[in-house]
Amino acid sequence: MTRKTNRQFTLAARPQGQARLSDFELVESAIPSPKDGEVLFRNTLFSIDPYQRNLMGNGSSEWPVIEIGDPMGGPTVAVVEESRNPDFAVGDHVQTWTGWQDYAVSDGSDLRKLDPNIAPLSTALGPLGLTGFTAWYGMTKVHDFKPGGTLVVTGAAGSVGSTAAQLGKLRGFRVVGVAGGPEKVAFLKRELGLDEAIDYKADDLEQQVARALPNGIDAFFENVGGPLFPVLMEHFNTDAKMTLCGTIADYSDTELPKGTNYLPRMITLIHYRFVSIKAFATPYVLDTFPEFLAEMTPLVTSGRIIYGEEFIKGFESLPETFLKLFDGSHSGKKLIVRAD
Amino acid sequence: MTRKTNRQFTLAARPQGQARLSDFELVESAIPSPKDGEVLFRNTLFSIDPYQRNLMGNGSSEWPVIEIGDPMGGPTVAVVEESRNPDFAVGDHVQTWTGWQDYAVSDGSDLRKLDPNIAPLSTALGPLGLTGFTAWYGMTKVHDFKPGGTLVVTGAAGSVGSTAAQLGKLRGFRVVGVAGGPEKVAFLKRELGLDEAIDYKADDLEQQVARALPNGIDAFFENVGGPLFPVLMEHFNTDAKMTLCGTIADYSDTELPKGTNYLPRMITLIHYRFVSIKAFATPYVLDTFPEFLAEMTPLVTSGRIIYGEEFIKGFESLPETFLKLFDGSHSGKKLIVRAD
Repeated sequence: MTRKTNRQFTLAARPQGQARLSDFELVESAIPSPKDGEVLFRNTLFSIDPYQRNLMGNGSSEWPVIEIGDPMGGPTVAVVEESRNPDFAVGDHVQTWTGWQDYAVSDGSDLRKLDPNIAPLSTALGPLGLTGFTAWYGMTKVHDFKPGGTLVVTGAAGSVGSTAAQLGKLRGFRVVGVAGGPEKVAFLKRELGLDEAIDYKADDLEQQVARALPNGIDAFFENVGGPLFPVLMEHFNTDAKMTLCGTIADYSDTELPKGTNYLPRMITLIHYRFVSIKAFATPYVLDTFPEFLAEMTPLVTSGRIIYGEEFIKGFESLPETFLKLFDGSHSGKKLIVRAD
Repeated sequence: MTRKTNRQFTLAARPQGQARLSDFELVESAIPSPKDGEVLFRNTLFSIDPYQRNLMGNGSSEWPVIEIGDPMGGPTVAVVEESRNPDFAVGDHVQTWTGWQDYAVSDGSDLRKLDPNIAPLSTALGPLGLTGFTAWYGMTKVHDFKPGGTLVVTGAAGSVGSTAAQLGKLRGFRVVGVAGGPEKVAFLKRELGLDEAIDYKADDLEQQVARALPNGIDAFFENVGGPLFPVLMEHFNTDAKMTLCGTIADYSDTELPKGTNYLPRMITLIHYRFVSIKAFATPYVLDTFPEFLAEMTPLVTSGRIIYGEEFIKGFESLPETFLKLFDGSHSGKKLIVRAD
């Protein structure tokens, strides 16, 4: 629905620990006008992702943060409303990086055209967007993962984790997923077809882990961090390879936890089992995006890789929808806010 | 001096924490006789190395340990006393792996012939032996260390560390050494010519570290571990590379320390600075030993790489000499026990 003003959710304050509604401010301004060569588009779908916490600052991340007063960042799906660029026509669907605002302009260089006849537009934020790319890159390009062994995926019911876990199955791993609560565990086994699923919220976590990993861990796709990791790391095999994708449990930490210091143990595992841990950052590796789309598009459109989506209606629900990611309450499905 | 019996120091008990004299037992037995194809040799120089603690068990190491009742392992220099193998003559000097015993036999396959005209025999245990090989391999083959940045070497006054630090200088790094106490710090700057030296025992450790590392750490050669590491790791630059050679401060630990849990911070550094930590184990990479000798022999014999040796007389001093490594009292020079 075309509007008369442009709404933006800007960063009002850097969070102290967990982000709160008061860290965001809803502001209205004039809709921008495209200059020669530019297009004006209206965002229709907004991606909700854990890494956005890192954009707000005052957490464990060390990457650049957005300024106070700037709109929250993130991928969106948009429709072109006015074009002064010959490459784009009114009505074109595009994926943008303009974050939490109704309207924005671009010279087109950061826009990806979408064809709704190939896949639903929302997949450009999920399995065929940043979410899927993160899973694919982490499973494909970070380590030379040797199929056949045991792959552990944490946050396996989440949008990145579920895609990584399914890629692991397709590539011949025995896949063990970790998630919180019996419903997610059932989803991992019944819907995703994983070999074993571990409920990290259960009282018998260590026993569950030991039962699910009789032959240890050869490959590890880490999305969670927190107290779960020291339990899992004990099961690393010699030459185990870990892709460090994220540590959602730590993103809001402003100081280090007290108790047992597991750092020497981690160093010992690297020392004597040659465990290799590598991280990656999608902004630096977008040159592989076409290769990702070529492999993933048929897997997604044929249903060999499934994905969950949960649509929340209304631009103004963006902050509260985002905060659901961090209280462990949401279903694990990809959260997408649909413009009103 | 030829003897009538063979003395051995065997493992009497697995240490609880720090090793003690009572963990060793001196036993005497008949001198073995070489079979056809074998040689009998007498050990004349015994190498004392931190990793030998790991052979005793009940510490942080996960590698195979020696059995109770077996002689302590380690490299030695020996002289052939009887030969039934055409490749060896009586009086030949060889480097062996037979550990803490006067005599042993071998089919020759694990013996390295030494030429005392090229370099002093003791160097076969130090800069041209396992010690130097460990330093060279860790500096050369583990990471693609890019010269020009800042290299930090911990345990830099020790025999492995001092060789690694000097290789770093020769290869164009700005080298910062870490050692304990003002004498070792003076040695690092005056004798080894390092750019900066940090005394990890000083009260102002954090300030010293910050002063010595204005441009952070690009390459790191780790020998120590313990509480020093979390202080240093804060200075890792993006893409910093760490060779994990050893953690002498942790070898005797039977449980993890309490207090601040630095593991999430380590994971954060890997996540956001792409720090890469790799370990190695010399037994698996001995195929590069000839390449090591080719590069290091001229550096050592010409004095471009210097080394310290401290000779202790008498086979029976082996256990107490070894224990000096772990109380921080020894000079950092390579400890070598000379047979009586």
